[in-house]
Amino acid sequence: MTTALPDVIDRAACAGMDAADPLAAFRDRFVIDDDVIYLDGNSLGRLPRATPPRIAELVAQEWGRVIGAAPGEVLVTDTTSVDLFKLLGAVLQAEPRRRVLLTEQQNFPTDLYVADGLTRLLASGHKVRAVPRDALRDALDADVAVLTLTHVDFRTAEVHDMAALTAAAHDAGARVVWDLSHSCGAIPVDVSSAGVDLATGCGYKYLNGGPGAPAYLFVSRRLQEQLGNPIQGWLGHESPFTFVSAYRPAAGIRRWMSGSPPVIGIAALEVAIEMFLEADMRRVGAKASQLTELFIRLADARLTRHGFEVASPRDAARRGAQVSLRHPDGYAVIRALIDHKVIGDFRTPDLCRFGFAPLYTRFVDVWDAAERIVSVIESGEHRRAEYAERAFIT
Amino acid sequence: MTTALPDVIDRAACAGMDAADPLAAFRDRFVIDDDVIYLDGNSLGRLPRATPPRIAELVAQEWGRVIGAAPGEVLVTDTTSVDLFKLLGAVLQAEPRRRVLLTEQQNFPTDLYVADGLTRLLASGHKVRAVPRDALRDALDADVAVLTLTHVDFRTAEVHDMAALTAAAHDAGARVVWDLSHSCGAIPVDVSSAGVDLATGCGYKYLNGGPGAPAYLFVSRRLQEQLGNPIQGWLGHESPFTFVSAYRPAAGIRRWMSGSPPVIGIAALEVAIEMFLEADMRRVGAKASQLTELFIRLADARLTRHGFEVASPRDAARRGAQVSLRHPDGYAVIRALIDHKVIGDFRTPDLCRFGFAPLYTRFVDVWDAAERIVSVIESGEHRRAEYAERAFIT
Repeated sequence: MTTALPDVIDRAACAGMDAADPLAAFRDRFVIDDDVIYLDGNSLGRLPRATPPRIAELVAQEWGRVIGAAPGEVLVTDTTSVDLFKLLGAVLQAEPRRRVLLTEQQNFPTDLYVADGLTRLLASGHKVRAVPRDALRDALDADVAVLTLTHVDFRTAEVHDMAALTAAAHDAGARVVWDLSHSCGAIPVDVSSAGVDLATGCGYKYLNGGPGAPAYLFVSRRLQEQLGNPIQGWLGHESPFTFVSAYRPAAGIRRWMSGSPPVIGIAALEVAIEMFLEADMRRVGAKASQLTELFIRLADARLTRHGFEVASPRDAARRGAQVSLRHPDGYAVIRALIDHKVIGDFRTPDLCRFGFAPLYTRFVDVWDAAERIVSVIESGEHRRAEYAERAFIT
Repeated sequence: MTTALPDVIDRAACAGMDAADPLAAFRDRFVIDDDVIYLDGNSLGRLPRATPPRIAELVAQEWGRVIGAAPGEVLVTDTTSVDLFKLLGAVLQAEPRRRVLLTEQQNFPTDLYVADGLTRLLASGHKVRAVPRDALRDALDADVAVLTLTHVDFRTAEVHDMAALTAAAHDAGARVVWDLSHSCGAIPVDVSSAGVDLATGCGYKYLNGGPGAPAYLFVSRRLQEQLGNPIQGWLGHESPFTFVSAYRPAAGIRRWMSGSPPVIGIAALEVAIEMFLEADMRRVGAKASQLTELFIRLADARLTRHGFEVASPRDAARRGAQVSLRHPDGYAVIRALIDHKVIGDFRTPDLCRFGFAPLYTRFVDVWDAAERIVSVIESGEHRRAEYAERAFIT
């Protein structure tokens, strides 16, 4: 489809080619300052007008304050899966003689998948040791390179004692990698005072970064030069814009970047993080305690008689911002509740989960939710055939 | 900071707690349908009102059409670095006896970094064999697991013969992984007719997906069940919402997902992809040829006498949508041009790069750019001290 250029070329001939150009109209769809001749589309394309305009700088220090990290210890990048892979990979690489990744059997499944995939890729005798929650300390032997856990259990909202388990891992010569996806934004997290080595977490749950928001990772300052990011991308390079062929890791937290940061997603997440900083994480944690406490009180008073059982810890200090209720008809109850505009979710085999995000959940919402659960169960409405059918899995 | 709940709890007491809640006002900052009691913030947080509202479905088939893939062979996910890591890792894992990653010395540096990081992580005798461009075929021996190359050279815009090199790799029993970052959106790409195994590319260059747009990956249908994604995240699981502890890879392209997709970034990239489909990739490629041809003609006529040398191929079929000019004062020239509103960029040691993205570059822009280069060089303006100083690297 190439058309020959005219024999005589001057500016008028170029203007003539523009007039005949079938693609000419597309130019108007981009954000263009008409004075600038932008010839760098091979490096970074122009922004289409229709692209969401909000694009902000990565302000990593803000994210750090939400989890008690120091400046320069947190990076917003990639997904929780990829970040966890990088952190676990880095520890295994630094400790080739220790070949066990210790975790709990009930850890968040993605975390188990990532650990499993990493050991398969390494194919050097590494293995995942997954034990019950109460056997973790005894399993911390001299083969363990890393203990990796999710801070708040996604099924029951039970909180691990982050400081105590971190100390136990360190006593055994192992590193820790915490997944904060179900705690950050819901309950207070302080990685510094807990002596945490490495952590990661998700931006779209309690942090409200929007669907598919990027994840973040934390690397303690004391390990930043010792460990290397196994996914060596250009932005983790000491000098990313010189484009030399040999990789030299950047100093500090930047070496934990791989590819380009998801700027638009970060901008969206930033909106949410700013609200948390304004709200104060202690107040957020306090309200989460009250909301969940209220729901448990209402469950005890009104729901246990209908076969519900509180599956979350009763001690607020050991509970995230979620309450799970077991019920033999849990799946049907959750589906019926959706028709009554109460959105919880269900996890096998019998868990109804209700999350109480402190920034937008009111106390009357807790009351009304309990009321509607009672109404569904007393009317027997959840027994309708349409609710039993597992057409969708939440 | 936990405050005790009142002794008597009824809806009025809950409303009282709401009235006293210091966080109550934050509720208004979220998109809330007032009838719904949303208690699923532990799974997916509510969307803040200030978050860009445009969120779209992942329409993988559209991206596929841009690179000549069949439906179900392309996925928009992660970054180019992470996608390349996954694809190379998968091949090495499937072929444990072949331990060489073959590439060219002048490959895009990120690609070299990723390959290097992967071999270090594996620590099983794998190595990167980087040879000059013209030695690639001879280096394809029985140790090579994978040949990985960037389709269009980022320095000179020289295009590799994708079909011929893919066939040569296959003859040697190796797989190929192509990086399309500098070709897709600029010149026609047809992975199917070239018999390509695996490919990845960037969304924010010629594709105009906006800063930090997600990358995409291509896995030929014939390899989708044979290879496994080494970064095993929840969305690559056969049944991601059942949350079972054992990883079972999904069938088809979905197993190449790891964490959650960057939905907002995908929505932005989709805007751009839709334009390309509307514009027709053949017309896009034809215009790229004409624009670069015009610039080379102008360079020959007006710039070579000032010490510029065309570093890009003169054969349009072997050239991407970029023209690079060598000049001993290249860095200073590029800086001076920015003050004249011509945005190119510089790559060491002496390359001035000018990209001609077909959807928004006019022929008169090419003319005016050449004119301003002549004007800068004839006036000697680029010799000003401020332009020599390497304060920033583009």
